[in-house]
Amino acid sequence: MSNPKKKIDGDPGNIFERCESNVQSYARSFPATFTLAKGSILKDINGRCYLDFLAGAGSLNYGHNNPNLKKALMDYIARDGITHSLDLHTLAKEEFLTALQEHILAPGGLDYRVQFPGPTGTNAVEAALKLARKVTGRQNIISFTNGFHGMTLGALAVTGNKHHRQGAGVELPHVTFMPFDKYLGENIDTVSYMQKRLEDPSGGVELPAAIILETVQGEGGLNVASGRWLRDLQNLCRRFDILMIIDDIQAGCGRTGGFFSFEEAGIRPDIVTCSKSLSGYGLPLSIVLLRPDLDIWKPGEHNGTFRGNNHAFVTATKALNHYWQTPAFKREIISKGHHITERLEECAARFPHHLGQVKGRGMMKGITCLEPAQAAMVTARAYEKGLIIERAGPHDEVIKCLMPLTTSLQQIDEGLDILQQSFSEIFGQKGSTHSKLKPVG
Amino acid sequence: MSNPKKKIDGDPGNIFERCESNVQSYARSFPATFTLAKGSILKDINGRCYLDFLAGAGSLNYGHNNPNLKKALMDYIARDGITHSLDLHTLAKEEFLTALQEHILAPGGLDYRVQFPGPTGTNAVEAALKLARKVTGRQNIISFTNGFHGMTLGALAVTGNKHHRQGAGVELPHVTFMPFDKYLGENIDTVSYMQKRLEDPSGGVELPAAIILETVQGEGGLNVASGRWLRDLQNLCRRFDILMIIDDIQAGCGRTGGFFSFEEAGIRPDIVTCSKSLSGYGLPLSIVLLRPDLDIWKPGEHNGTFRGNNHAFVTATKALNHYWQTPAFKREIISKGHHITERLEECAARFPHHLGQVKGRGMMKGITCLEPAQAAMVTARAYEKGLIIERAGPHDEVIKCLMPLTTSLQQIDEGLDILQQSFSEIFGQKGSTHSKLKPVG
Amino acid sequence: MSNPKKKIDGDPGNIFERCESNVQSYARSFPATFTLAKGSILKDINGRCYLDFLAGAGSLNYGHNNPNLKKALMDYIARDGITHSLDLHTLAKEEFLTALQEHILAPGGLDYRVQFPGPTGTNAVEAALKLARKVTGRQNIISFTNGFHGMTLGALAVTGNKHHRQGAGVELPHVTFMPFDKYLGENIDTVSYMQKRLEDPSGGVELPAAIILETVQGEGGLNVASGRWLRDLQNLCRRFDILMIIDDIQAGCGRTGGFFSFEEAGIRPDIVTCSKSLSGYGLPLSIVLLRPDLDIWKPGEHNGTFRGNNHAFVTATKALNHYWQTPAFKREIISKGHHITERLEECAARFPHHLGQVKGRGMMKGITCLEPAQAAMVTARAYEKGLIIERAGPHDEVIKCLMPLTTSLQQIDEGLDILQQSFSEIFGQKGSTHSKLKPVG
Amino acid sequence: MSNPKKKIDGDPGNIFERCESNVQSYARSFPATFTLAKGSILKDINGRCYLDFLAGAGSLNYGHNNPNLKKALMDYIARDGITHSLDLHTLAKEEFLTALQEHILAPGGLDYRVQFPGPTGTNAVEAALKLARKVTGRQNIISFTNGFHGMTLGALAVTGNKHHRQGAGVELPHVTFMPFDKYLGENIDTVSYMQKRLEDPSGGVELPAAIILETVQGEGGLNVASGRWLRDLQNLCRRFDILMIIDDIQAGCGRTGGFFSFEEAGIRPDIVTCSKSLSGYGLPLSIVLLRPDLDIWKPGEHNGTFRGNNHAFVTATKALNHYWQTPAFKREIISKGHHITERLEECAARFPHHLGQVKGRGMMKGITCLEPAQAAMVTARAYEKGLIIERAGPHDEVIKCLMPLTTSLQQIDEGLDILQQSFSEIFGQKGSTHSKLKPVG
Repeated sequence: MSNPKKKIDGDPGNIFERCESNVQSYARSFPATFTLAKGSILKDINGRCYLDFLAGAGSLNYGHNNPNLKKALMDYIARDGITHSLDLHTLAKEEFLTALQEHILAPGGLDYRVQFPGPTGTNAVEAALKLARKVTGRQNIISFTNGFHGMTLGALAVTGNKHHRQGAGVELPHVTFMPFDKYLGENIDTVSYMQKRLEDPSGGVELPAAIILETVQGEGGLNVASGRWLRDLQNLCRRFDILMIIDDIQAGCGRTGGFFSFEEAGIRPDIVTCSKSLSGYGLPLSIVLLRPDLDIWKPGEHNGTFRGNNHAFVTATKALNHYWQTPAFKREIISKGHHITERLEECAARFPHHLGQVKGRGMMKGITCLEPAQAAMVTARAYEKGLIIERAGPHDEVIKCLMPLTTSLQQIDEGLDILQQSFSEIFGQKGSTHSKLKPVG
Repeated sequence: MSNPKKKIDGDPGNIFERCESNVQSYARSFPATFTLAKGSILKDINGRCYLDFLAGAGSLNYGHNNPNLKKALMDYIARDGITHSLDLHTLAKEEFLTALQEHILAPGGLDYRVQFPGPTGTNAVEAALKLARKVTGRQNIISFTNGFHGMTLGALAVTGNKHHRQGAGVELPHVTFMPFDKYLGENIDTVSYMQKRLEDPSGGVELPAAIILETVQGEGGLNVASGRWLRDLQNLCRRFDILMIIDDIQAGCGRTGGFFSFEEAGIRPDIVTCSKSLSGYGLPLSIVLLRPDLDIWKPGEHNGTFRGNNHAFVTATKALNHYWQTPAFKREIISKGHHITERLEECAARFPHHLGQVKGRGMMKGITCLEPAQAAMVTARAYEKGLIIERAGPHDEVIKCLMPLTTSLQQIDEGLDILQQSFSEIFGQKGSTHSKLKPVG
Repeated sequence: MSNPKKKIDGDPGNIFERCESNVQSYARSFPATFTLAKGSILKDINGRCYLDFLAGAGSLNYGHNNPNLKKALMDYIARDGITHSLDLHTLAKEEFLTALQEHILAPGGLDYRVQFPGPTGTNAVEAALKLARKVTGRQNIISFTNGFHGMTLGALAVTGNKHHRQGAGVELPHVTFMPFDKYLGENIDTVSYMQKRLEDPSGGVELPAAIILETVQGEGGLNVASGRWLRDLQNLCRRFDILMIIDDIQAGCGRTGGFFSFEEAGIRPDIVTCSKSLSGYGLPLSIVLLRPDLDIWKPGEHNGTFRGNNHAFVTATKALNHYWQTPAFKREIISKGHHITERLEECAARFPHHLGQVKGRGMMKGITCLEPAQAAMVTARAYEKGLIIERAGPHDEVIKCLMPLTTSLQQIDEGLDILQQSFSEIFGQKGSTHSKLKPVG
Repeated sequence: MSNPKKKIDGDPGNIFERCESNVQSYARSFPATFTLAKGSILKDINGRCYLDFLAGAGSLNYGHNNPNLKKALMDYIARDGITHSLDLHTLAKEEFLTALQEHILAPGGLDYRVQFPGPTGTNAVEAALKLARKVTGRQNIISFTNGFHGMTLGALAVTGNKHHRQGAGVELPHVTFMPFDKYLGENIDTVSYMQKRLEDPSGGVELPAAIILETVQGEGGLNVASGRWLRDLQNLCRRFDILMIIDDIQAGCGRTGGFFSFEEAGIRPDIVTCSKSLSGYGLPLSIVLLRPDLDIWKPGEHNGTFRGNNHAFVTATKALNHYWQTPAFKREIISKGHHITERLEECAARFPHHLGQVKGRGMMKGITCLEPAQAAMVTARAYEKGLIIERAGPHDEVIKCLMPLTTSLQQIDEGLDILQQSFSEIFGQKGSTHSKLKPVG
């Protein structure tokens, strides 16, 4: 553990202020300098511990430095397993593909080809959109209000968020935004609206190559598409020969219960993007799953230097083998999810003037602050008490629980206790002290 | 060397054919399934060894699984150092920033802020272009013939290659391509041409936010911009208040001698992108270096899940500390580079009807096959003999030596011997047997 | 009525088939070769007369070769009045501006500057959009389902019609289509929907420079925006600082009663485009009316060769002086409009299984055929009987009465009799013979 | 003749200042209010006469109110010839097509279909570009430095002029500007440069649908493409299957001698646009000439209200019949063109420190002022002396003689005398008095 006093003496920590770009954001809400991490706990250079309900924005579903994955990774490195392999075939990739096939695709009756498009989510979205346009010869994409898909120009174009869109510096064309499920209220069927626009020869909508959506909008505020809406949407797509792309980067890898978030609805997307928790260890990895007949890529037409991140293959394989051989993990997630809902609903009942709807699915749950500014105050207070938790939604009004799926019920309750205390304090009721967390290592 | 028929027996490789997308490319030229790697040697599942003159397309400047970096990484993992940290401050990032400042920026008199834009080169290029547009309020970017900058829509727009551009499925606007140094022949000054177009109010060129270029065009065929041309270009940029972005993703990190490829010309780009060999271990990492006054990003305006790849920070720090404290490594690169040139020029002299110009700078060298189809035959033959080497250039006509910078002179010669034998055999002269390489591990 | 076989004898029409482009459309529905025209009557080369309920697609509100205007034009030509004047000041233009000011703008309390953007409607729309973008510094424009604004790329981008959009050959960016009044049904307020999208920071709508709309959608099927909806829309625009552009090219110049179609709703658009019947004689003329503070054009920034079509100024001036000095003409239009509605509603009542809603406002009225294919049969039958009448709407399902405003009640009834007979015949009831029209000249 | 005193009394002329948009430009250089016009003479409301070397920016090749055309037009109007006919067949259009076929196309061995795209030049350019994209399925267009093609978004995109491009308010994509003939100097072959860029798979140029160019760049400064360059360009187009569009809007209709400006070079464009002097009387008219096999338009795919401007058909027919039945008119133009060249070269010789190159072809000639600001002073001085003459070129540095082709040699000399006097006065030598012009009517 580094000596925190050093920092003050020579002031080396200031290097972030001196040298790192203003673009940083999480570091503003959680300004500690972190060193170690294990499971659901982070430790900073002063030895303070934090319970992590952010989990790498959903990239650490199996917790920080999961010991099973860690062992596999260290063994691999120790024996000089190939680390970087471009798109070459490697044993580590073979094992990953085999595990994916065996534990996820085959049991789900899913027949997909796997593309490694570069190791980040936005790479996967870019590849998916390119392919959809290439296959159909069309340019337009339908995306949804509050959708979030990435920061590179193609992915940014299908992202609704103005703050990010304005960063582009150029227009973001070839996208038609449509209202997500329930966007116009409970009783207005937005799939019907889309259908009317698509059928109307003067509706001003170019027939799209694809629609892209998250089944639960992670950054958009935990808006959940109902199973019925998803099935209607799939029917619409099939009727107009539009490809359906599910961006499962945040909601996938078990976050909502099943490995894929769309399983529950019984739909069969044409293209699926996965990343974030795919490697299981927080290492950069992403894949695009393609209906085999769509795989008309020419060799190297989409490429990227870090498509062959073998460390990530190794941990991803281990995660699949360890967590997804039986339905036990899925059951556990669903059960914990119910528990979180109950606790959040208790909060909502207790602070009816400050808190609104409990949102989300599985272990991707949140609660709406009626006054968005208070959401920021609550999460700041929670941080003081040792809980790292973020907000989502167009006005950052939804406090979002995104802890590792492996977080114990006890830790979940510890975190939710802190959250509840923070609500109390901010909403004008009795305060609380910093809760005690078990130290790392 | 093991028998390639073995592969058919257990048929483990077939999963790539069954499950992986057609988009793979390197795997077609080098179809082995690789397992282990060390220094400049790769080993496949049949135990066969290969000398690696591709080096992860320039991502393995310090060799595969460099032992110094490996030890630092294993220690870090062992002690549960935080792996994934979004854009939070971590000790590993602090140490990386410190080493970058100390060994590279300060000695070079370079004052830059560091942005972590996501861990791939294309993320870095996207961020650089966004910022240039944001700072200037302009949309156009000048890029160059044969420039290569990435696959996501923004980066692809500044990439000249038609094969990749056609994958976009949409237009790629806001870019004006200009002729690179010597594109119109030795005697035509393309900076003057650019100046005339920019000065002419009816020249049809929108004043650009930035120009983006590689000083040595890696994928474009090892075209080298002269120091004078780079200085003239910098003057042009300053005169018209255009930002100069050097994409040093392939040519940087020591590949041409200095840490940055532009040092030799004495220019001072406004923005620099680095990736590939930055982590030193082949782990995904990229940075954008910004003139401090350009750092007008709003918090989180550009983000990405894997900006905090701490394993990569650890190995990058180690690489900087180990290789860049003294000028010794730079001298070694330059010296090896001269040796490569000499040997390639011998080849050129020996096969004047088949080989043309020796191109490139430092240890980024290549030789032109007058008949592009023969270049493919030569590299295929070299692979049979145990050498992995790729081609570049608009017609894939340049055979490109991109071995790790740490490759020993003896290994360099072994590889060049294989190359020379392959030339002989393909160009109709006497054949050769597979050379002996030292095994890995 | 002359014998159509005559045409074949001398075969003079064949040059159209040999030499004119396939792009022609009206000539396919009404294949005669026309020679003379007066009021609401056209005559072909065989001497046959036709009652004109198309009126140059709304360009002949005062009838063909209106005698008052004709005299002014002939006098002007006879005395060598300047014909073509670029944007120079001419006496004819001065008189036009004076009449417009005196009879239209001043009485309506409208303070607008006049731009002559080139003599066609699409020129005017292009100029209006350019200026809105220039003034606001924004790029997006909100247009509406079924809106129609022109064929040049800028105007085509805000036109919903797919048939026309596909002619562009390139994408048509920077436009967000929103549902017009009642598009989602009688009870869904589409201004509220627009407001929600605009207020939502993740709604995916870039704040637009302007909205552009027709108060009655001419080509879109005679959809009428209610006064309330227009006022709500104006409030929305003001709240978000969005410019409101009324495209009054087809609905203006008296077509719906008042000189401008938006008068009735009591709104005050920021920009208005006029063309079609503006010259009154069918001569090319268009203007853009601008709120004076928006007039930030630089000299010559938008130009065009035929901005100074003085013949059109002369006839336009005469039309303003003759028809718009008193409210009499407006009253007459409204009264005739009511009559048309009544007659069409009789038809609707008579053929409830074939005809639907009577649509439109003023003398821009139509009736929906429940089976679009029958609409084409009806208008073809009407043509055989000597009535020129066209269809509109996304499926060409609305039969559209667009006769000159000066058409006598008797002629209106003659035409509507033919229409009614055509309905009867096509819908399977008793036929009729060609009605007798007064000959021209 | 209106009484000029009236203007001063009631100040009615101020209406231009009060009511007309700032966008006006010619009216700033030539601020009189004009009333009558005949041949090459304009008269203002004060009775002052001006010699017209601007001729409606090339729209009045046969002079103002040409008496032959005038008679035909008045007769047509008098007998109620149809004025406005959309795209219906009319006798007037039939006669125009017949005359065009007989006097221009057939003698030139040119096989083209005729499209009426709307009556302005920019409509014609938009239609030509749409069709080229539709036929080839490609989006890019190659245009040239200093090219000028119109103000609507599609035409503006291929116009190089920054002043006008900035008016768009949006990007103008899908165009690659290439250097025009001699742009890089006398000795650099810009067709070869284009060829290199097109052949290079990494040249950054999308294969274009078409190239569009003027053989003499009217607004761009009277740059003349040599016959050889045009033929090389045609060969390049054919080799890459690129359509060649000649925009003959300003240089056509006899301006350079032949009816089409490209005749002399012996090339055969795939598409030709004509407008400006096509009607002969300054009335709005334009056509697109298409190679018959390119005519794949769907009915109505490109339309426009004023495609059937029959007054213009009548005068255009008369102009073709009167001036183009024999080669006499062409000979006269060429001869006058030589005379103009001689006189301008005398000026150049006399003021070698102030005047540069004599530019242009036929009766489209000009002379470069070495100091652009002086060009403005010269034309202002000439206007004071009764000569209307404009400037062209990227810096408005070329004084451009564009008088009617029917201007008598004596009038040409009168005008050139004024110009020469103006040179003398501005360049610091002896002054002159207002020359005497024959009054109109």
